[in-house]
Amino acid sequence: MDKTKRYLVVGLGLLGGKYALELTRAGFTVDGINRSEGHLQYALDHGYIRSGKTKDFEDLVRQADHIIFGLYPTALLDWFRTYGRLLKPGCIFTDVSGVKTGLVEPIQELCPEGVEFIASHPMAGRETSSVEHAAEVNFAPANFIITPTQRNTPEAIQWVRELAEVLGFRHICTLTVQEHDRMIGYVSQLCHAIAVSLMCANDNTDLCEYTGDSFRDLTRIARINDKMWAELFLWNRENLIAEIDQFSGSLGQLRQALEDGDRDGLEAMFRLSTQRRAAFDPKLE
Amino acid sequence: MDKTKRYLVVGLGLLGGKYALELTRAGFTVDGINRSEGHLQYALDHGYIRSGKTKDFEDLVRQADHIIFGLYPTALLDWFRTYGRLLKPGCIFTDVSGVKTGLVEPIQELCPEGVEFIASHPMAGRETSSVEHAAEVNFAPANFIITPTQRNTPEAIQWVRELAEVLGFRHICTLTVQEHDRMIGYVSQLCHAIAVSLMCANDNTDLCEYTGDSFRDLTRIARINDKMWAELFLWNRENLIAEIDQFSGSLGQLRQALEDGDRDGLEAMFRLSTQRRAAFDPKLE
Repeated sequence: MDKTKRYLVVGLGLLGGKYALELTRAGFTVDGINRSEGHLQYALDHGYIRSGKTKDFEDLVRQADHIIFGLYPTALLDWFRTYGRLLKPGCIFTDVSGVKTGLVEPIQELCPEGVEFIASHPMAGRETSSVEHAAEVNFAPANFIITPTQRNTPEAIQWVRELAEVLGFRHICTLTVQEHDRMIGYVSQLCHAIAVSLMCANDNTDLCEYTGDSFRDLTRIARINDKMWAELFLWNRENLIAEIDQFSGSLGQLRQALEDGDRDGLEAMFRLSTQRRAAFDPKLE
Repeated sequence: MDKTKRYLVVGLGLLGGKYALELTRAGFTVDGINRSEGHLQYALDHGYIRSGKTKDFEDLVRQADHIIFGLYPTALLDWFRTYGRLLKPGCIFTDVSGVKTGLVEPIQELCPEGVEFIASHPMAGRETSSVEHAAEVNFAPANFIITPTQRNTPEAIQWVRELAEVLGFRHICTLTVQEHDRMIGYVSQLCHAIAVSLMCANDNTDLCEYTGDSFRDLTRIARINDKMWAELFLWNRENLIAEIDQFSGSLGQLRQALEDGDRDGLEAMFRLSTQRRAAFDPKLE
């Protein structure tokens, strides 16, 4: 990657902050734009960015060769509708959003001539948020997923791949927008929907003292950033509803076997789940 | 505990084997009864028991002061119907079963004069089974739950409590049979039902490479001993069906919020789940 290029991070949250930190560490010139003064100041004080603004930031946008949007999808789309015209020809930019349908195509449509959006998703969710926790994020074990469309050039895909390497990702792969959102609906959102529903089902906090590892593991992700996850769920709701329905069908089948006293049916489900789960954890075999 | 008393373990599986091992280590005299020759021989070879039989074991039963039944509930009830009359007056015995309704009362009914059943549950489930893994079981962090009824004497309750201490349990508590089974239906069985259903919902093993900690944590317990869990589920099916229905209602509420685009409703659920989950993990606060 070319170190003479000027980087701009818009949205200095947990991930935007981490991107700024790692790019600066790697020797790039990074500016920042953030809504709140406090977090911008934190990024400045800790040397994550060279300069930054909360408003009147048109100059920073105009001079950026590469932009990273650390915004929720709704905020990103709003921002781009207002300021997208300022991006200079040749600018290649990416995002960090956990959903892609409904976001990538509209933004690619809005791009001025010579400006290219290559979408990507760093799958490094955490229970924490904000730039103050950015330094704790570890990208090494996480997946970095690039979701190119037919509008993307090999150069832009190569740029975002190199960006992921600079950020420390070791697992970098490519999916279509549709594949990405279906996958996310299953491996992440459905799990969160289940954990949340389990905690909301009834107030069993009096049972705390009896819980073992199973319960704790299953519900750990029920501690959730409400704003971010409502956003992600709603942006991917068709996939998530489909996953919930499939899961509910399966749970209904188990419930019916219980109702019928169908021991063979239960055992068959347990063998299937054991066999499939083994594929997700090959090291235990 | 009185070390002149003779102990008998019926069913040398994972837990029965561990009980035998720990009692022997503590200086008690322990005999064993087991259906399969191989596992009995393992227990003998490794010094878990002093002597043991697979059949013609009436003498071992007759001379036991204390018996531990390491059997599934159905097998325990069957065994007791056949051999329960052999237990000598003064004998106090316990079990390891993960469900109590439908088991404790019938067996207490069947007890000969002067013989007492005090039920208990070592909550130390593992993915492994069989006596060959008994030595790996660690009781220290697990709960030991005593479920006395009105038929039980303070002496028997005291005995099983001391037994739990000898076995290394540090968390020993008392619940009624009904409380125990409701609690187990929620903290253990519902979690297993969910994990199994998630794996059975569809074959997404092609998504292995994208899974993160959330998915792995949620589905770890989908690797399950089919015979044992079918048994435990069916013995507790009323509680488990009620828990599944409550959970499904909650998941249905989340699904409806998605369908309606109800951001406030989703955020409210996320805040509730976050707040309740915090109670289960106070150290993270």
